Amino acid sequence: MSQTTDPSPVSGFPRLDWVDEALLPALRGAVQGLPEAESLVARYHRGWCEADGSPRTADPGGGKAVRPALTLLSAVAAGAAPAVAVPGAVAVELVHDFTLLHDDVIDGDTLRRHRPAAWSLFGTPAAVLTGDALLVAALRALADVPAGAAAAAVQELIGTLDELVEGQSRDVAFEKAHGVTVADYLVMAAGKTGALMGCACALGGLLAGAGPGRVGGLREFGRRLGVAFQCADDVLGIWGRTARSGKPVGADLAARKKSLPVVAALAARGPAAGRLRALYRAPHPLTGDDIALARHLIEEAGGRRAAEDEARRQLTAALRALSRARPTADAYRQLHDIAWAMTHRES
Amino acid sequence: MSQTTDPSPVSGFPRLDWVDEALLPALRGAVQGLPEAESLVARYHRGWCEADGSPRTADPGGGKAVRPALTLLSAVAAGAAPAVAVPGAVAVELVHDFTLLHDDVIDGDTLRRHRPAAWSLFGTPAAVLTGDALLVAALRALADVPAGAAAAAVQELIGTLDELVEGQSRDVAFEKAHGVTVADYLVMAAGKTGALMGCACALGGLLAGAGPGRVGGLREFGRRLGVAFQCADDVLGIWGRTARSGKPVGADLAARKKSLPVVAALAARGPAAGRLRALYRAPHPLTGDDIALARHLIEEAGGRRAAEDEARRQLTAALRALSRARPTADAYRQLHDIAWAMTHRES
Repeated sequence: MSQTTDPSPVSGFPRLDWVDEALLPALRGAVQGLPEAESLVARYHRGWCEADGSPRTADPGGGKAVRPALTLLSAVAAGAAPAVAVPGAVAVELVHDFTLLHDDVIDGDTLRRHRPAAWSLFGTPAAVLTGDALLVAALRALADVPAGAAAAAVQELIGTLDELVEGQSRDVAFEKAHGVTVADYLVMAAGKTGALMGCACALGGLLAGAGPGRVGGLREFGRRLGVAFQCADDVLGIWGRTARSGKPVGADLAARKKSLPVVAALAARGPAAGRLRALYRAPHPLTGDDIALARHLIEEAGGRRAAEDEARRQLTAALRALSRARPTADAYRQLHDIAWAMTHRES
Repeated sequence: MSQTTDPSPVSGFPRLDWVDEALLPALRGAVQGLPEAESLVARYHRGWCEADGSPRTADPGGGKAVRPALTLLSAVAAGAAPAVAVPGAVAVELVHDFTLLHDDVIDGDTLRRHRPAAWSLFGTPAAVLTGDALLVAALRALADVPAGAAAAAVQELIGTLDELVEGQSRDVAFEKAHGVTVADYLVMAAGKTGALMGCACALGGLLAGAGPGRVGGLREFGRRLGVAFQCADDVLGIWGRTARSGKPVGADLAARKKSLPVVAALAARGPAAGRLRALYRAPHPLTGDDIALARHLIEEAGGRRAAEDEARRQLTAALRALSRARPTADAYRQLHDIAWAMTHRES
């Protein structure tokens, strides 16, 4: 199938207004069903309101609903109407928010989506309990699915949660570890980012009533796409022209984060890699000049190239898996465009 | 049925060695299946090891496995062998540990089971992630149950998690609220303590293949028992002769915690209640003398009597619900003895 061999560029991120229209009523219902205090934290975190509960005047949209879009389009790919997959779309978005709330506590990150992270405004206790509440609400969304699909959908999510915990644990351990390899990184990214995108796609197939082969193809598409996205996001975190994920460019380097370009460069041979290793081992905080030097050394040691190549490989594998799921032509095109946009945000 | 009208005293807590023998291999397997860092925190929290992972020399038992005992005995009550309910026993114990780890973070409590709380030794990030990992492991334990029981068991747990989140949210809100009533307290206790004990009993019935009526009776027994236990525990927190739950007697008062005797006394008429309200409204931290005075005022305003009466009422209702589940005679006797011991720990 020629369409899988080399993804072709599209201009900008696809319009996902129809996803918001299908998703938002159910998502708002789930968030408003939380206890009052946790509902406020969740709505703030999503960008639906200010910290005091008043409506946001600027940019009220929140993040792009990429995972829900994958779920709804995966249902379409399996020949169903997107509406059947709304509970799955709600569940993955709630789980995503759960991971962001807890991860910001765990990593001590004070910025999220260009605003103060929830814990830094509402306190760690509120962020922990809201995360718990969102995770439970996600399980509830799937448990309430009618007919026989609920059990398989809940099982899919539980398997994913296992991987998310494992991925987050590896990510925390990475920051203290020496000698992290590119292979280690890919296992971590598969858990931390790939698992939930794989779940998003598999749930779309499951709720559409697709068989195991098709669901497996959709899951693999989402997993590979998640890893491709993470590799590309790591590149933007160092060389992006604009802030992404609500964090300033260079923040990953300042925190000596072991993103893929860094891991690949630290493991490389040659003088640039050696100087980078010395810089990363130095006990002092990195200055602005150190960060600029690190950026240069990582590129010279081949870290940027390695990450871009890996993103491309994973995207190609993702689209190959998508073809195996025999999607409808229209769904293929839309999933392809989203996948491309997620991995080429500054192309 | 005369046995339900008035519970008779037994001497001390029933021996639960057989529960440990049935439970521990599966529980250890689940905890050791966590990522390495989270497994260490979980094992420390359970009292299985010191903070550095070395075996504990003193009191290596950890807490009493009350919830798993309820699960296994509920299966026996429904005519099955306890072994069929082991995954349920593992799940409720893991969920209990999840709630303790996160609650200690949320409440800032530094002591748990007479040792430093996990977060105070390993840090908040480690305690949050370990709690998440235990919750997911609990879901996994039930999802892996063979045959058709898994779906109903996972549904039961999801409903319980909803209530736990709601109960914890109410508990946090209580500490800032004025005018909390005894009715408010009972709703909170039903969520925070009753729901998981109800789940423990219902899972035993479900995994034994019991029908909805019997499962409902077992669930109600556990819920009422949980509330009775919480009422009795609140009394011990103020007038206990020995430290309970690993926290010093008087700690609840020092923290101005709205336990049942306090709620009942604050809502009472008369001069003692008035003086207590003034003490609780005072802006300064409570001194040792203040705490002794509060203890006296709560008793004089009828708070202790109200809590003891409520514990008795809930225990009677629990045993009535247990009878409705038509348990085998031997299981009834054992569940009765556990319920009695849980609510009369210093009798």
